[in-house]
Amino acid sequence: MTLPDAPTRGRSLRSTITSDGRVRLSLEERPLPELADGQVVVAVEASPINPSDLGVLLGPASPAGLTRDGDDLVGSVPAELLPRVRDRLDKSLPVGNEGAGTVVAGVPELVGKRVALFGGSIWADYRVADADAVVELPDDVSTAEGAALFVNPLTALAMVETMRAENHTALVHTAAASNLGQMLVKICADDGVPLVNIVRKPDQAALLKGLGAEHVVDSSSASFMDDLVAALAATNATIAFDAIGGGRLAGQILTAMEIVAGRKAGGFTRYGSSTHKQVYIYGGLDTGPTELNRAFGMAWGIGGWLLTYFIQKAGPEEAQRLRQRVADELKTTFASHYAKEISLAEALDPANIAVYAKRSTGAKYLINPNKGLA
Amino acid sequence: MTLPDAPTRGRSLRSTITSDGRVRLSLEERPLPELADGQVVVAVEASPINPSDLGVLLGPASPAGLTRDGDDLVGSVPAELLPRVRDRLDKSLPVGNEGAGTVVAGVPELVGKRVALFGGSIWADYRVADADAVVELPDDVSTAEGAALFVNPLTALAMVETMRAENHTALVHTAAASNLGQMLVKICADDGVPLVNIVRKPDQAALLKGLGAEHVVDSSSASFMDDLVAALAATNATIAFDAIGGGRLAGQILTAMEIVAGRKAGGFTRYGSSTHKQVYIYGGLDTGPTELNRAFGMAWGIGGWLLTYFIQKAGPEEAQRLRQRVADELKTTFASHYAKEISLAEALDPANIAVYAKRSTGAKYLINPNKGLA
Repeated sequence: MTLPDAPTRGRSLRSTITSDGRVRLSLEERPLPELADGQVVVAVEASPINPSDLGVLLGPASPAGLTRDGDDLVGSVPAELLPRVRDRLDKSLPVGNEGAGTVVAGVPELVGKRVALFGGSIWADYRVADADAVVELPDDVSTAEGAALFVNPLTALAMVETMRAENHTALVHTAAASNLGQMLVKICADDGVPLVNIVRKPDQAALLKGLGAEHVVDSSSASFMDDLVAALAATNATIAFDAIGGGRLAGQILTAMEIVAGRKAGGFTRYGSSTHKQVYIYGGLDTGPTELNRAFGMAWGIGGWLLTYFIQKAGPEEAQRLRQRVADELKTTFASHYAKEISLAEALDPANIAVYAKRSTGAKYLINPNKGLA
Repeated sequence: MTLPDAPTRGRSLRSTITSDGRVRLSLEERPLPELADGQVVVAVEASPINPSDLGVLLGPASPAGLTRDGDDLVGSVPAELLPRVRDRLDKSLPVGNEGAGTVVAGVPELVGKRVALFGGSIWADYRVADADAVVELPDDVSTAEGAALFVNPLTALAMVETMRAENHTALVHTAAASNLGQMLVKICADDGVPLVNIVRKPDQAALLKGLGAEHVVDSSSASFMDDLVAALAATNATIAFDAIGGGRLAGQILTAMEIVAGRKAGGFTRYGSSTHKQVYIYGGLDTGPTELNRAFGMAWGIGGWLLTYFIQKAGPEEAQRLRQRVADELKTTFASHYAKEISLAEALDPANIAVYAKRSTGAKYLINPNKGLA
């Protein structure tokens, strides 16, 4: 089925962390996997740099410590953080969770079509994929607009579904000015779900208020705990999704929820309120330890949360329903904005990585792996 | 229905923590609640000092800092720990979760019978209770033997039931040489459930091995993490019940579970293993913060766990089944051992509280509120 002009080799961005604590980022040319029936080769033209990609790219290494070694970037991982990545040590990992591009070979009906795809190894000029796993882009959607159809939109929708499945009626989100957080503001407004947005800077609060967010709390404010308690009392939120991970924030959220629950219950209960309070940690913007002072009774839970596990539990019909909503609202709710488009080689420029690895609000980059190729 | 000689006043041990951080323990004489139809007055003759009682008695106050003030004991709570007890501040709380004694008034058929009871305020010479909530003790069970029918036995059984309900097949227990831990060793042996016991001292390990425990790991040993990984690999335990709460132990357990799960899965998974790993914190022997380094992937949970919540979820039939098992195995699996019997007044002796508040293995005390009364 392979067309005679199908590419047989491709360049991809890879990351290796070694047992002795070195990290190496490199562009490598390798043979593409042989094309099987029902597969396509996609020339990738747009892929967002998501926080989950940075996790694969850098692990716990600091971008500030990266230096050039020929065309590669090298750096180090502190010894105490190596156990977090024990399963990947000394393996060369391809990077890139999602993207969009043009089919250049394989299943004939798809050749020439623009498609979105998901599943790793997408920071590459060419990516082989199963034809039935790619999503054809409508004519009015640009390739860049179609590059981020999966990770952030489905994660934001799955958070709201998790809230419902676990019998909560409102939710809390941290690092709430993120690309994902902005989508969540729109979803919750459309669905009538009260949302408490926790941000870390005044300008992030302003950004979310500009989007119509009602409850925005700034953790850098001296009145943070009081503000949080007030927002939780107003919304009755008893579940939170936390992108920060490290530090005291998850515990502060549980504590504030418990203060509200205690007030509503009235009177003393020896073990705190019986209202179940839940925080799911889905990111690690702060890689330091999570510290819980346990000032929140006995009815609480903290756990890891991953879109993949949600989809496995929810099943294919629910996943399809969520994907359809993303497709329907691609230019509104789920529109992403990028500060800059860079090539694969430019992704390894220390000046660029210093910016995009910060995950700063408004500094999201888009990689075009076919930019700058001969 | 009240007999003419029914007691109308009673002495009970009470604890107050004030907003300014003072704790006061005192014996107070108060009128008993008026006896209603279907109620009894129990002369309490035996009540164990459980860790959950110490939580009510002392809150986060250190027993070492308690001093006499007349017949009372007074001490202080560090300001940073006051938020944990915010709902009880400035309230006088009665102490004592369970016990046994003789019915001295009320429902005539029960007068003169020895019964076990549960539900708070039991460190008192007399306790009014609903007749259908007390459990009559068989002739061959002494009052002391019947004093601890509820808290530890049901907690230990409920841990095994929670393990089953959440689809795990083996479990981990910390502070495993405790009275409760010893019961759990016997339950798990009888039920064929693999159990990993974590203790903090070599003599505790020896005690449990003497009871036939197969997997005992000492957290004070230099090889603790390796030993824990080996025990988890041998048992496939993916759920733990932790009585310690503070410090790094809960995170270490999750990390060791993840190491085992990663080895079994083989190969690299970007977000760690997909095996769900759970720790329930049911006690607070270490009142310091819980510190999680999150070196255990994304499939994990930590939460508070309370017998009351388990019973509410499991329903009355399941609760009755567990209570029946306790009654059937009262002199074997669920036998408690006490180092000393003390009166209510002796419970406020600094020399005694210094011992029993340590929760040391083998230093469990029994209170007899009718000891030393005129």
